[in-house]
Amino acid sequence: MGKNSNFYPVILAGGRGTRFWPLSRRKRAKQLLALDGKQTMIQQTVKRLLPLASARRFWVVTNEDSRPAILKQLPALLKAQVLAEPVGRNSAPAIGLAAFLLLREHPDAVIGMFPSDHVIADKKAFAATIERGIEVAAAGENIVVLGIRPTRPETGYGYIEAGSALDGDALRVRRFTEKPDAEKAAAFVAAGNYFWNSGMFLWSARTLANALREHLPRTAVVLEEIATAWGTRSFASALRRLYPKCKNISIDYAVLEPRSAKGEQVGNIFCLPADFGWNDLGSWTALHEHHTAKSAPAEGNVIQSADVFVLNAQGNYVHAPGKFVATVGVKDIVVVETDDALLITTRQHAQDVGKVVKHLDEKKMSRLT
Amino acid sequence: MGKNSNFYPVILAGGRGTRFWPLSRRKRAKQLLALDGKQTMIQQTVKRLLPLASARRFWVVTNEDSRPAILKQLPALLKAQVLAEPVGRNSAPAIGLAAFLLLREHPDAVIGMFPSDHVIADKKAFAATIERGIEVAAAGENIVVLGIRPTRPETGYGYIEAGSALDGDALRVRRFTEKPDAEKAAAFVAAGNYFWNSGMFLWSARTLANALREHLPRTAVVLEEIATAWGTRSFASALRRLYPKCKNISIDYAVLEPRSAKGEQVGNIFCLPADFGWNDLGSWTALHEHHTAKSAPAEGNVIQSADVFVLNAQGNYVHAPGKFVATVGVKDIVVVETDDALLITTRQHAQDVGKVVKHLDEKKMSRLT
Repeated sequence: MGKNSNFYPVILAGGRGTRFWPLSRRKRAKQLLALDGKQTMIQQTVKRLLPLASARRFWVVTNEDSRPAILKQLPALLKAQVLAEPVGRNSAPAIGLAAFLLLREHPDAVIGMFPSDHVIADKKAFAATIERGIEVAAAGENIVVLGIRPTRPETGYGYIEAGSALDGDALRVRRFTEKPDAEKAAAFVAAGNYFWNSGMFLWSARTLANALREHLPRTAVVLEEIATAWGTRSFASALRRLYPKCKNISIDYAVLEPRSAKGEQVGNIFCLPADFGWNDLGSWTALHEHHTAKSAPAEGNVIQSADVFVLNAQGNYVHAPGKFVATVGVKDIVVVETDDALLITTRQHAQDVGKVVKHLDEKKMSRLT
Repeated sequence: MGKNSNFYPVILAGGRGTRFWPLSRRKRAKQLLALDGKQTMIQQTVKRLLPLASARRFWVVTNEDSRPAILKQLPALLKAQVLAEPVGRNSAPAIGLAAFLLLREHPDAVIGMFPSDHVIADKKAFAATIERGIEVAAAGENIVVLGIRPTRPETGYGYIEAGSALDGDALRVRRFTEKPDAEKAAAFVAAGNYFWNSGMFLWSARTLANALREHLPRTAVVLEEIATAWGTRSFASALRRLYPKCKNISIDYAVLEPRSAKGEQVGNIFCLPADFGWNDLGSWTALHEHHTAKSAPAEGNVIQSADVFVLNAQGNYVHAPGKFVATVGVKDIVVVETDDALLITTRQHAQDVGKVVKHLDEKKMSRLT
């Protein structure tokens, strides 16, 4: 394992992570929180990629709200490595911009696209999988997606249907599927050739640029125009002026799905099955499960506080740092406390927490978002 | 209605109210909290008695922890009117001390004993009932207890079994009963001649003093000795030295029960049925019910906070002043937040909150009690 001279990690950090309200806020998005351990999610993301690429090779694409905190949390990166979208345009323009920028100076660059807010338990297995992905991606016009071996019939993720093997580990992708219902999800898990779409992709800058030119031609033109201003004084204004013209679309919808529809022999999309203890921490409930799996706390209570007294209480998640917490007779409850807000929900309902932020946005209560 | 020249209210304020933790603390006991409205429980207790007795006629018996706050909350009372027990000895010595003190200067005094932490909705009906009680108490060696007409088969209260009527409203007391089981409680409510023991009593100072001399002779001697020091410089030291020698017993056990055992014609105990919207606020659950009955909030959620968003949540009680509270998918939950503590329980389990304080006492975590 070592630093690959052509590998450039691009970290997408433009999300808001509203399901972690009230901890997550516009200027303190999920990726900026230390939800698991002392380092924040984005710090962990960078750290596990550093064995593969030096700090100068990273790009972070984020928004104006998060950029100051990201620069503070990642002091090894130069300001120029952290790009702020003037408006959010989802993943296709974000990763595309990185591709066109890299292509100018590093035509053989292999790009890895990484969400900034997931946890991965086995750092060594992760690095080994990425190294293998870089090989496959560098070998031609290949697109590599990391597929997580499903551990439960999850209905909240998209699935990858894999076909024949390329070379032992890499599997040809037959199809990307939408989030399935419970019955379909169970069938996918049972079938054995379905994987969760991790949102982690690898491809050469050239392959990615060409794919965008094919599937998203107008956005590709805009991105190339922005890229020509790179390194000049007019880059910032070009980005601000042109980026909003890009289509608001994910790379999955824009490129992966139409490409896979061409058939598994033509699409050249490969799935690398990954078993490195991945969790996207999609909600407080997922965080509770992650902590429970890691440390097996008494009666399933994960309580982050100064001190605690538990009486006849099971399966709760409480975040109230600095306070003495007493739980009496409650089950499967989620309570999160900040200086200005208090969330009270259940493990079952925690996926609806985003609706609180929607309400606050509608009421223009920006102090709380 | 008017001030009765012989009426002296004695307010018992020595309780800790641990079931209102974390709001209640040693130096901020339940009676010092504004659980219903802007005034604290003890302020409300005094206010509803002021139509019947001027401020100078009140006595408050409390402890050293609560005395400073009580003096602050009741500025109309002189320091000498607020007595602090050096150790808690329950209600018999507390009310007895007041009786022996009053007897020295006001031999015709009628004493009313009042808990300091109950709510009463109908102040006029309350005052009218007390006036009638004073009449009955002043008429002889009578003991008057205010009986609350039961509205549900409550198992948490003692009941008074009433017999024949004295004079229309006042009923002779046949028996005091312990807290009944659910079946008995239902039978009591159905019978129609059972009342909840409110803990509010009326009797002349002479009757009370004689009753103590009869039923609690050693304590009566101690209290008389303390009373002889009243008005002298040695009163404080006499109280400190002698009061601990009193028996630790409630007036119910010490006097009411043995007296009623003599038979309803001999005991001279009378129950005045009361219908003035009484609630002893025994727990967060009782407080929730009180607020719900008063203001019928949407979906039964009583939420004391800066602002609130409720999504699919019913029957919750939340106290988090100053914070934005979001409740998502929770039912019958009780959450109470203070600067240093967070209680999470259910309406069903809120009666166990005292156990949290017991735990804190055992762990000597006095900062939180």
